Amino acid sequence: MTTVPVRLKNRSYKITVGAGSLATLPAVLRTNMPVSRLFIITNPTIKKLHGMALEKILKKISGLTFHWLTMPDGERYKTIGTVEKLCRNLLLLKANRQSGILAFGGGVVGDVAGFVAAVYMRGIPFIQIPTTLLAQVDSSVGGKTGVDLPGGKNIVGAFYQPRAVIIETRFLNTLPSRELLCGLSEVIKYGILWDSKLFADLEKNVGKLKTLHHNTLTRVIARSCAIKAHIVEKDERESGLRALLNLGHTVGHAIESLSGYRAIKHGEAVAMGMSYAARLSQNRGLISKKDEQRITALLEKTGLPTRWPSYPRRSYEKAVASDKKAGDFKISYVAIRKIGKAFLLPLTPAEIMEHL
Amino acid sequence: MTTVPVRLKNRSYKITVGAGSLATLPAVLRTNMPVSRLFIITNPTIKKLHGMALEKILKKISGLTFHWLTMPDGERYKTIGTVEKLCRNLLLLKANRQSGILAFGGGVVGDVAGFVAAVYMRGIPFIQIPTTLLAQVDSSVGGKTGVDLPGGKNIVGAFYQPRAVIIETRFLNTLPSRELLCGLSEVIKYGILWDSKLFADLEKNVGKLKTLHHNTLTRVIARSCAIKAHIVEKDERESGLRALLNLGHTVGHAIESLSGYRAIKHGEAVAMGMSYAARLSQNRGLISKKDEQRITALLEKTGLPTRWPSYPRRSYEKAVASDKKAGDFKISYVAIRKIGKAFLLPLTPAEIMEHL
Repeated sequence: MTTVPVRLKNRSYKITVGAGSLATLPAVLRTNMPVSRLFIITNPTIKKLHGMALEKILKKISGLTFHWLTMPDGERYKTIGTVEKLCRNLLLLKANRQSGILAFGGGVVGDVAGFVAAVYMRGIPFIQIPTTLLAQVDSSVGGKTGVDLPGGKNIVGAFYQPRAVIIETRFLNTLPSRELLCGLSEVIKYGILWDSKLFADLEKNVGKLKTLHHNTLTRVIARSCAIKAHIVEKDERESGLRALLNLGHTVGHAIESLSGYRAIKHGEAVAMGMSYAARLSQNRGLISKKDEQRITALLEKTGLPTRWPSYPRRSYEKAVASDKKAGDFKISYVAIRKIGKAFLLPLTPAEIMEHL
Repeated sequence: MTTVPVRLKNRSYKITVGAGSLATLPAVLRTNMPVSRLFIITNPTIKKLHGMALEKILKKISGLTFHWLTMPDGERYKTIGTVEKLCRNLLLLKANRQSGILAFGGGVVGDVAGFVAAVYMRGIPFIQIPTTLLAQVDSSVGGKTGVDLPGGKNIVGAFYQPRAVIIETRFLNTLPSRELLCGLSEVIKYGILWDSKLFADLEKNVGKLKTLHHNTLTRVIARSCAIKAHIVEKDERESGLRALLNLGHTVGHAIESLSGYRAIKHGEAVAMGMSYAARLSQNRGLISKKDEQRITALLEKTGLPTRWPSYPRRSYEKAVASDKKAGDFKISYVAIRKIGKAFLLPLTPAEIMEHL
């Protein structure tokens, strides 16, 4: 077990990572969120899989009452309507500023529950227990919460930090393998954009990750969180450095949007987007052919797709241009200098898409 | 014309008060919110009354485009549904983080537009131009934004500060007089809880305020904002001092809730609540009989109601107990020590309501 600090002044908190870390919840609650009433936001799948394990721990805490609030499973329920329903339930159950929320699930649950915590009574405390690898390495750090609107993902939301995050790697034992790969896609992203040592670690040990070797998972998850924490600490509200985390996302989002968010998962689209970023960076003479090949090879070894779908170039350009990170003319594209170092390169949609 | 600074570190801003202050909007935009696209959130009544005056000023600003977004008039539209509609419109119009919002209207418009600004793309800048006296002295300071749920007012919201506030006293010329009185109720509140000089000023000059003498309005509005700013600066997120601003609100909210929010306006309910607070404080030997009488006399001279409706005591107790500011047992009731000084007195609902 290991801990990663996230230093954001009076919004600082700690991430506990490892097999068995769920057992630290009572101590974490006592220290970081000493509430008498806890509202667990989750979906039926997670409740069925891991609800008993959580209840067993919570029932031992004297003076604590808890309530389950479930939302349907799936990105299409990441809506303002779901937020409203959850807030109405909290009000009916008389939740107040002395209550706390537990976000218990994957990325959708985390984003929705975090946003509910941010806006219910203008903010009540919450703790995150992410149950997918993607949520563990991505949503645990950064305070991004929110929901989608038709025509735009994460359009309505808030920057709101949890009081603590607990990453129980044992939850990954029940995670479908395709979901595991999507999480690994984000882990590889941290290696490419920030940490050549992590990248080399992954080249060597990706097999152990896929077979859920918990010490390896713990090391790699903790390192990913530490990198994201470092970047977010320097740029909490996404004005500069944090944009590097969009590596693979400009083209990745375009692919998700063109495919209608169905056949292709986010992590897979990001893998294609990173593969594309490596191609673009190599074509522009920014990275060596060898680094491009190492990136593609690691993605392939992991089992992630590296070839982007063959939509017409114009469609790609349009999709890239409507990405919400886009400014008025050029887009801050995340290009690669070498493995372990990414940077922002302002490019027009046409310049981005000329390497299909 | 006068300005009031609100000092909240990197969220500091300036309030400009006076007849003709609307003309400072171009300079305020340039300095505090240099956007190329402005989205004006308002209701049809305000647009009809003051839309032309605003457009005339905005059209002179080179390089600025603006769009009107209207929401229906009235507290019953202060809902999550309205927020969702406005966000969808912003997305359709391709508003992004380089865009700004102008909240142009009374308290409802300000609360909704401020919340939209807080959550659209996790926060875009906004400027407030409050058009009612109540909004000018209450909502311009404090950053409270949000909407109602059935069963609770302001249950979903955010603390989010504007980049600037412009208080054009000329807008009060078209304000229905009952609305003007509701604003004066809040002004009297600041006198009672914080500033005996302001209270004496009101005793002398309330007639001038009712006949819209602009210099007097400007002085009294600026002083009210300065008091609220001072309190909010010391307690931005409402943990202690800021609770003093609830003077008259515990019983006031109960009256609003018992009357079904229809016949009685918020400012009127607060006037009754303050009159009740004076009675309670005098009965408990906290203030002199003379101070109680001065408070009641000023409210009456202003034209505000001082007698609370005769609901059964049990109904009052239940309504007071369900107030969202309530903790588990005692309520932080705002009692009066003397004119110009209020303090928090923890009381049970029964103790609060025993002075009917």
